[in-house]
Amino acid sequence: MTPTMARPGGRSAKVTEAVHRAVVELLAEGEPVTVPQVAARAGVNATSVYRRWGDVNGLLADAALVRFGTSAAVPGTGSLAGDLRAWGSALVDEAARPEELALLRAAVAAGPADPPALRAGSSAPAAPDSACSACLTGRSSQAEAILAAAAARGEQAPSATRVLDHLVAPIYLRALFGLPAPSVEVLVELLVERLVAPAAAQATSSELG
Amino acid sequence: MTPTMARPGGRSAKVTEAVHRAVVELLAEGEPVTVPQVAARAGVNATSVYRRWGDVNGLLADAALVRFGTSAAVPGTGSLAGDLRAWGSALVDEAARPEELALLRAAVAAGPADPPALRAGSSAPAAPDSACSACLTGRSSQAEAILAAAAARGEQAPSATRVLDHLVAPIYLRALFGLPAPSVEVLVELLVERLVAPAAAQATSSELG
Repeated sequence: MTPTMARPGGRSAKVTEAVHRAVVELLAEGEPVTVPQVAARAGVNATSVYRRWGDVNGLLADAALVRFGTSAAVPGTGSLAGDLRAWGSALVDEAARPEELALLRAAVAAGPADPPALRAGSSAPAAPDSACSACLTGRSSQAEAILAAAAARGEQAPSATRVLDHLVAPIYLRALFGLPAPSVEVLVELLVERLVAPAAAQATSSELG
Repeated sequence: MTPTMARPGGRSAKVTEAVHRAVVELLAEGEPVTVPQVAARAGVNATSVYRRWGDVNGLLADAALVRFGTSAAVPGTGSLAGDLRAWGSALVDEAARPEELALLRAAVAAGPADPPALRAGSSAPAAPDSACSACLTGRSSQAEAILAAAAARGEQAPSATRVLDHLVAPIYLRALFGLPAPSVEVLVELLVERLVAPAAAQATSSELG
């Protein structure tokens, strides 16, 4: 379900934008996020919100999809290491902003109680439009675009899964659990160095995906 | 504030255990976790809970500290790779259990809105007894114990920060955001291989911590 893509256009786009803004503002203020609260803040009817997004999880998923899918453009610096550094720094900056961090925290909190993904032998992905998986949908696409550009230049590149595991995961772990980092530059530089340096040497070894 | 350590003993230990169990049960059932709810479930006075834990965040922090600090013992397999594999597998198993995952999610949701840790130039750690940082306190100690044992055997070992960034972070990212993994064994094997293989070659290069 991708309501914002299914109903583009004038009034509909304005409603979507107002509703997403209301969700993020309420989260950042520490207010409870319910459909009536969001509707009141956005100045729309609660019934419209229920009809379009179903419930709070649908609202969070759509807000996360839009906010984390569009907020960090692919940098285009001309090298894989440069692109990953610029992109990683943008992720760190974003995760340090109260609104984005509140949305990440709320999406994680709304995740499924029983994760199929980590069960041994299970290969079923989480529901594609759950709020928590929506946070990473745009990230995966952006990583794949960066890696495709590197491959087109003839650069050795790790898999998108490796970028998620070793660049996105440490940044999000630090943001979500409040781990200290010396500085954004040092953190991202080290993570990218670890990711890019072994890629040439280990390009033929097995990869997760 | 470490109430469970400050007040060991018979009745106090029983109360602590009953309160922690009530917190985790309510979370796993998707019930709201409030001090009155926890007190009622645990069969203790709400005033005792307020006096001892302060508020819900104090309750979550203490429950996370105990649950994630004690649930995965250092394996002692005799090699760094073996210890990291066994420990990583235990983390994956734990994060796949509904009660532990619910506690992780709730601790993340209760985290500070404004993270000092990721601000450029800031070296201030998060409050040591916040619920979200408490989830990683035991993990850090366990990683340090594993690495100290490796160093005592004369093995080259990465830093504890690198273990958090590249073994714990990918496992927690997958659990919290519902990313699919081929299987626990394949995931942990690959993560440990990436972590341990370059340690010998890069032992003299700069480390985060």
